[in-house]
Amino acid sequence: MNEVSYRNVSLTEGFWKNRQDIVKNITIESVYDRFFDTGRVEAFEMKWKKGDEKQPHVFWDSDIAKWIEGVAVFNEITPENEEKIEHIIDMIEDGQDESGYFNIFFTVVEPENRFKKRTEHELYCAGHLIEAAVAYYRLTGKDRFLRLMCRYADCIEKVFRIDKSADFTTPGHEEIELALVKLYSVTEEKRYLELAKFFIDERGKKIEHTYGFFNDGVYDQCFKPVREQETAEGHCVRACYLYSGMADIARIYDDKELKHACEMIFEDIVNYKMYITGGIGSSPIGEAFTIKYDLPNMRAYTETCAAISLAFFAHRMQLIEPKAIYAEIIEKVIYNGFLSGISLDGKSFFYENPLEIIPELRHKDVVVKNGERFPITERLEVFDCSCCPPNVIRFIAAIGENIYTYDENTVFVHQFMSGEAEFDSIKIIQETNYPFDGKVRIRYYGPDRKLAVRVPDFCEDIESENGYIYFDVSDGMETEIDFTMPVYFVESNPLVYENCGRYTVMRGPVVYCLEEKDNGKVLRDIVIDSNSEPEEVYDNEFGLPVIKMKAYRRKAQKKLYYRKNNETEETTATLIPYYAFANRGESEMLVWVQIR
Amino acid sequence: MNEVSYRNVSLTEGFWKNRQDIVKNITIESVYDRFFDTGRVEAFEMKWKKGDEKQPHVFWDSDIAKWIEGVAVFNEITPENEEKIEHIIDMIEDGQDESGYFNIFFTVVEPENRFKKRTEHELYCAGHLIEAAVAYYRLTGKDRFLRLMCRYADCIEKVFRIDKSADFTTPGHEEIELALVKLYSVTEEKRYLELAKFFIDERGKKIEHTYGFFNDGVYDQCFKPVREQETAEGHCVRACYLYSGMADIARIYDDKELKHACEMIFEDIVNYKMYITGGIGSSPIGEAFTIKYDLPNMRAYTETCAAISLAFFAHRMQLIEPKAIYAEIIEKVIYNGFLSGISLDGKSFFYENPLEIIPELRHKDVVVKNGERFPITERLEVFDCSCCPPNVIRFIAAIGENIYTYDENTVFVHQFMSGEAEFDSIKIIQETNYPFDGKVRIRYYGPDRKLAVRVPDFCEDIESENGYIYFDVSDGMETEIDFTMPVYFVESNPLVYENCGRYTVMRGPVVYCLEEKDNGKVLRDIVIDSNSEPEEVYDNEFGLPVIKMKAYRRKAQKKLYYRKNNETEETTATLIPYYAFANRGESEMLVWVQIR
Repeated sequence: MNEVSYRNVSLTEGFWKNRQDIVKNITIESVYDRFFDTGRVEAFEMKWKKGDEKQPHVFWDSDIAKWIEGVAVFNEITPENEEKIEHIIDMIEDGQDESGYFNIFFTVVEPENRFKKRTEHELYCAGHLIEAAVAYYRLTGKDRFLRLMCRYADCIEKVFRIDKSADFTTPGHEEIELALVKLYSVTEEKRYLELAKFFIDERGKKIEHTYGFFNDGVYDQCFKPVREQETAEGHCVRACYLYSGMADIARIYDDKELKHACEMIFEDIVNYKMYITGGIGSSPIGEAFTIKYDLPNMRAYTETCAAISLAFFAHRMQLIEPKAIYAEIIEKVIYNGFLSGISLDGKSFFYENPLEIIPELRHKDVVVKNGERFPITERLEVFDCSCCPPNVIRFIAAIGENIYTYDENTVFVHQFMSGEAEFDSIKIIQETNYPFDGKVRIRYYGPDRKLAVRVPDFCEDIESENGYIYFDVSDGMETEIDFTMPVYFVESNPLVYENCGRYTVMRGPVVYCLEEKDNGKVLRDIVIDSNSEPEEVYDNEFGLPVIKMKAYRRKAQKKLYYRKNNETEETTATLIPYYAFANRGESEMLVWVQIR
Repeated sequence: MNEVSYRNVSLTEGFWKNRQDIVKNITIESVYDRFFDTGRVEAFEMKWKKGDEKQPHVFWDSDIAKWIEGVAVFNEITPENEEKIEHIIDMIEDGQDESGYFNIFFTVVEPENRFKKRTEHELYCAGHLIEAAVAYYRLTGKDRFLRLMCRYADCIEKVFRIDKSADFTTPGHEEIELALVKLYSVTEEKRYLELAKFFIDERGKKIEHTYGFFNDGVYDQCFKPVREQETAEGHCVRACYLYSGMADIARIYDDKELKHACEMIFEDIVNYKMYITGGIGSSPIGEAFTIKYDLPNMRAYTETCAAISLAFFAHRMQLIEPKAIYAEIIEKVIYNGFLSGISLDGKSFFYENPLEIIPELRHKDVVVKNGERFPITERLEVFDCSCCPPNVIRFIAAIGENIYTYDENTVFVHQFMSGEAEFDSIKIIQETNYPFDGKVRIRYYGPDRKLAVRVPDFCEDIESENGYIYFDVSDGMETEIDFTMPVYFVESNPLVYENCGRYTVMRGPVVYCLEEKDNGKVLRDIVIDSNSEPEEVYDNEFGLPVIKMKAYRRKAQKKLYYRKNNETEETTATLIPYYAFANRGESEMLVWVQIR
């Protein structure tokens, strides 16, 4: 399968164009300003000394790198942004030493520990800088940053692969693997690809490091060689960045064993360890996968970056083979557990994206120090560990790369977004109001081909072949499909104990939730009448309809316990898209609701 | 109100006599043996030296003291037990120094810290030794142990009240307050009562110590003067031992302000912070009360000792004023969250008594180290912190003291247990199979009085005056009441978010639960048909009927999420008394079930 890069796709209107505009107009500047305020930009000057304020963190390099990548992918090289980026590249050039090494923390804070602390994000930062350089070069053609990063990659190759002089073999936080594949794709220098494969091949040959949270080697996926791994384990961002790199290597080298491991792990995630929002990470302890069917809603970890990393993994699996499940998962992620990570106004963020919020319990957690680690209840503009905001920028910038793949016979349409794509002497114009409604019009220009359009899994009335419907298309032909989008209810496997007796309200790919702002407190006690007719009211701010349904709730009582009575009062439940939660101040929120 | 002591009551048959027999015949010896094995007995020799094994813990004195108290209250002074106790008293006599001080830890482990470490259970141990000495003296008339403990109390009075030479004013773990009241009641030495009042009066005048878990002064109830406290806060065993002492002082001194504080706190517990089992303590972090309506079932702390301490508090409130709520709470505790703390065979124990167990999640907690602190799933014979087992012995031994109180006009019957009581020229013979059935026959011998019999709150068809039904009785008169005992369903206040959509099955005062042993896994998915006729099958081992009801569960599915269907299969749900859970190996367990 061939990729259709974000560079070949432009969104012209609709849901995702709107989101992109907000990120372009608001988020890019806002995130930069917060990074500037917190010292992340200044840190590149490498002037920090012991005793100074704003000590650089081990991951600051990567925060700025992701911001640069986002700007470049978006093609938002305004004079101001170009000046900012060129200034950062100046500082990188000045700060890079003769060996090619560049890392802020291990230059100014712990220079004695260069390549000695496996846990401390050194190669993770390198990976993000490489990705940024690749994107900047692709957009501008200016190769200074890319050359600097090739020097750094050469340095890493020498230290890890040739001299083996580092204190560890594989990084504690994966990311460089997929970055080196990108560096290879733009430079065509095979050594970078080989280095990516080296880091993947070496991982788990021995347990290099044990983190306090976990049994040996689980946290950072080195409990056994990656080709023998069959389950998703440990810190889930680390995990899915690794799996993404594995999928890249499996595809490029046609490595069957690695592909099989990727498939097994992907199935483990989607069959046992993924929230209905596409979120992953069931425990804040280690930000990690836990055991099968363990999906607590309120204490979910489900980091925005984890959702992104799962989409990366699915995207790369889709490049190996066009199974509908990969596109389904990307769809789940982008409309739910990813998009909830950024506020509607584009200014503030969630690190965790829980499926239930009860503010009182979060406050309890603050009272009882060192407590139960509930997620925060209100979005912030920047975090101490602020990996998510710039990750959101670059992911939304590149969202178009998820729409199409193709081979010599067939063009696959995996996602539905209004826009134009040009690739391989083909041009496709897609017009849709998805996910507001299910009508999709596709105009095709190019040689005769099969057009394989994914039928979303909520669409039960259209027959498909393994999730796709095939059309023969020729130059200038228009195809129109209408995926009906009624409100429907989803249940989870009974083994997900938290959701027994509870259901999720969905419309198309969008998960809906209850919020206190519309429904008052104690959302868990609302019972939606599934036989009542849903009223859909289009909401401008959310860009999607709000759903209103008849519901019941118990009458308030004074006693703590009392004999069951069936006294309820009728009410109207208002459900909003999950991704829009927590945009109106602190509020109770609930995805899995009672339905009768 | 006057107390009818356990010494004036003997149980002759039925539910509690059976429990007492098991504890007498099995538990007393078993707990002693475990204490012997772990070095708790030997520790009294005060021969431990740095480097030796079995370093005495700060609370070991109290473990043995509670065991002695239990034996004495039970009147189980067999020659073997007498020898064991006299040997321990010998060691105490030898170990006590000229000042009257006796504490193992602060003599052999940290002698330099005597009366310096507020947090380390020093006065808590003193209190339990005093309680043991009082019980042993009351039973045997032998006053050696009592005199030793009077000397120790004198020492404490001198250090804390006269010289104020200790490094703290009030103990970090309350208990000595109520113990000193008992010492006063047997010695009639007012100084001991004054010392108890001193510790209560001083508490919270300043924050003496801040524990890591909590904001200032909450953990150990010193956040404000006790008379200004209106809510139950902090470590809940500490709390209820304190509140018990406060209730004693309020009653004896007729201290209105203190009584009011006790009433407010009691209401706070029963209206907002108590499980339906009578368990208290919603968080394992700090073993503590948390916020109103926060009653997580699976991660409940609900220590056996906490249930006991709540019964102590309620018992003392009942001595101030015969409100039915006090007896109701004692009943809730003794048939549920207390009794679950000991296995049916009398040999093993729970520290925590959760309302739901899913073994896989506990195992996850072990995999993810330092995790979410779920309770253990199987009973143990002894714990490192083994306060509960001997507390169970002494509490069951004295259970009869909860049945009656009286004043010049009225004899109150609060609890229903077959047995004889003699007090104040009155004799009462009670015959009942309670809680197996609700028939209670009371024969009264003595002068003309009012007999006030509590009408249990589950009994809705008998009219009462504030929870009691009044009879005029004269010598030889027999009264019979039948409290009907159908199976019924209880709901909790909607604000208890965990229980929304869920109900507890009860019969009389007994909470029932589902266990995996009878019903298979995924108990949360069982929906009991409330319109089906419950079948009651008497179970010899449990001493109560098992309840069988028609129920439904969803058919097993492979997928993680799927569109709601209404496919269920009919099944029979088997419910056992909550107190009998975890007697057949590790098993899922659930109290709050789905009902339709």
